[in-house]
Formats: sequence, C-alpha cells, structure tokens
Amino acid sequence: MTGELERLRETKTASEDIFRGNILHLFLDMVELPNGKIDHRELIRHIGAVAVIPVNENGEVVVERQYRYPIDMVMTEIPAGKLDAKDEDPLLAAKRELQEETGYTADNWTDLGPFYPAPAYSDEKIELYLAQGLHLGERHLDDDEFIDVQLVPLAELVKQVMAGEIYDAKTQIAVLRAARMLGK
Amino acid sequence: MTGELERLRETKTASEDIFRGNILHLFLDMVELPNGKIDHRELIRHIGAVAVIPVNENGEVVVERQYRYPIDMVMTEIPAGKLDAKDEDPLLAAKRELQEETGYTADNWTDLGPFYPAPAYSDEKIELYLAQGLHLGERHLDDDEFIDVQLVPLAELVKQVMAGEIYDAKTQIAVLRAARMLGK
Repeated sequence: MTGELERLRETKTASEDIFRGNILHLFLDMVELPNGKIDHRELIRHIGAVAVIPVNENGEVVVERQYRYPIDMVMTEIPAGKLDAKDEDPLLAAKRELQEETGYTADNWTDLGPFYPAPAYSDEKIELYLAQGLHLGERHLDDDEFIDVQLVPLAELVKQVMAGEIYDAKTQIAVLRAARMLGK
Repeated sequence: MTGELERLRETKTASEDIFRGNILHLFLDMVELPNGKIDHRELIRHIGAVAVIPVNENGEVVVERQYRYPIDMVMTEIPAGKLDAKDEDPLLAAKRELQEETGYTADNWTDLGPFYPAPAYSDEKIELYLAQGLHLGERHLDDDEFIDVQLVPLAELVKQVMAGEIYDAKTQIAVLRAARMLGK
C-alpha cells in the first residue's frame, strides 16, 4: 500500500493560523490535490485525548452525565479528558481522568487503540482504555466541572446504544467494544 | 430528569463569531456556569452529516479508502458526507452520498439514530444508516474527490475494529452496530 498514500496525498502549500484557543487551534491551509489543483482545508489541531470504559466486577460501567454546551444537552458519556501535553503518556492521562472525574482507580488497564472522532477536519486522536479491578476513592473535580457519576449495567448500555439512545460517539464505541470483549 | 438539565446547564452571556468557513464556523462564547462563575467555550457549529454502512447479500461492506489531510493518513471509512442544508432530510443525503461516492443504490434503509463525534466542542451530528439490497451503478465523484472503493467482509472489519486497526470513529460505530444487528 506504499503507493496509496503518495497517490491520494494532499500537499500543504500555505497555512494561515486563524485562532489559537485553549482547546481548538484553527488553521486555514492551502493544499495541492493529487490532480494538481489547489484547494482549501479548514482544520482544527487538538492536543489529543483519552477515554476510559471502567467495568466493575458486577458488569456495571461507571458513566457520567455531563452538560455539553455546543448541543445544549446532558449526555451519558464514559470518563474522558484531554492530554496535559502532546507527548503525555496516554495511560497516565487515562488514570488521572478516571480518578479525578469519578473517584475510581483500577488494577487492570487494557489499551483498545486509538480513534479519530472527526478526521475530515480535526487531528484529535482519542486513545481508548478498558479499566477493570475498580476501587472507589475520592473524586477531585475541578471547581468548574459539574458531572454526575452513575453505575449502569454494560448490557443496559448496549441496549441503549443499539436503540440509538447514546449520543456520544466515543461512548458508543467503548460500550460495543467492551461488550464484545467481555461476551455481553 | 427535568431538573438535571436546569441543574447542569451553562447559559450563554456573549458570543463572538471568530471564523466562518465552508465547513467550520467557530465561535468563542462566554457562559455562566451552574455555580454562577463565568467561563469561555470554544465551539464549532457544523451543518450536520450522514454516514451509511452498506452491506451486500454476501455480508460484505462497501468501504472507502480516503486521504484525511488533518492527520496525513489514508483511512478506511464508510461512505459519509455533509448535509446540503441544515434542514435537509438526512435519508436523502445518505442516499446521495452513497451513490455519488460508491455508485451503489440500496433497496432497504434502516435508521440507526444519531451520534455526536465531538460534543465537547462541536455541534456536528451524524445520522447513521444501514443500507441493504445493494445495486451497483455509476459513481459521480466531484472533480476534486479521490476515493478508492473496496468490498470487505463485515466479519473482517469487526476483527480490524477489535484489533484497533480502524481509526475512524464513525466506522468503528457502524461496523460494530451492523455486526450486532446482523449476528456477525
């Protein structure tokens, strides 16, 4: 497949730095297409993120109910968060986010690999983990984080995903992958 | 759960229109948090999108190999595309994107519901469909679209998802949901 990338690749000819925020860094690039034409690409550069599906001994998943401003909705989501730095060890970030947001630590961590939520316009990469052997400790939410934590049976979450009732992409992925791994 | 939204909601107090592109419309909003503090929200407003997992009589999925500029990678993805207008019927958009990008039409369409790929910072909503009863016709790619079409057994795609080898979020979701619906 070596030739495939060369055949389909778009080559940057210019890049304009439009906006550098705390989360989103927006660029407007000019690219040369495989047919030699010039086009624009609007894209977000993102520091990267981790997500964790924590499953306890009873087959229950630790999920969060969190308000999402862009869509004005409270959603069921697995714990997740941004890396502190582009080169942060994602496993350390996953352990930190799980403990801060839910109070749980875990004995066993399985790396389920990365995915890109919006590869057409964002370089955000989310590394996904399965966490088992859970122990409940103390939460350390930031002052300005408002998150409710719930335990929901994995089998129930699978039903909700299949019924189209789980709106968050990473949570659909994590629930279906954990269910298949754990035979639910 | 009526009280949940009121309890967790963030209220817009100001909004700055930062950049209006062809795909991404970036805003920097000021919001009042549930504790009365003021914070910023960087967010993308997006017209919305559709995605289709087309499965033929032999249990093969029509997938695309497509170059994604933000991550400089050719990825395996299911057919997908943006709505032409915010209020376009997503089923019509799904039929159009499938035919334009792959040449296939389908007799049977099942709506698998919506998901949000990046609800923390984007209002993009993707409506997902399962398409069956496939017929191959002619593709109508835009001049500047470069997409290879392949047929891959659904069971093989499931293996790739579980091995962390499918990097596109919507494709992981669609493969696992179709597999569970079709008993693969």
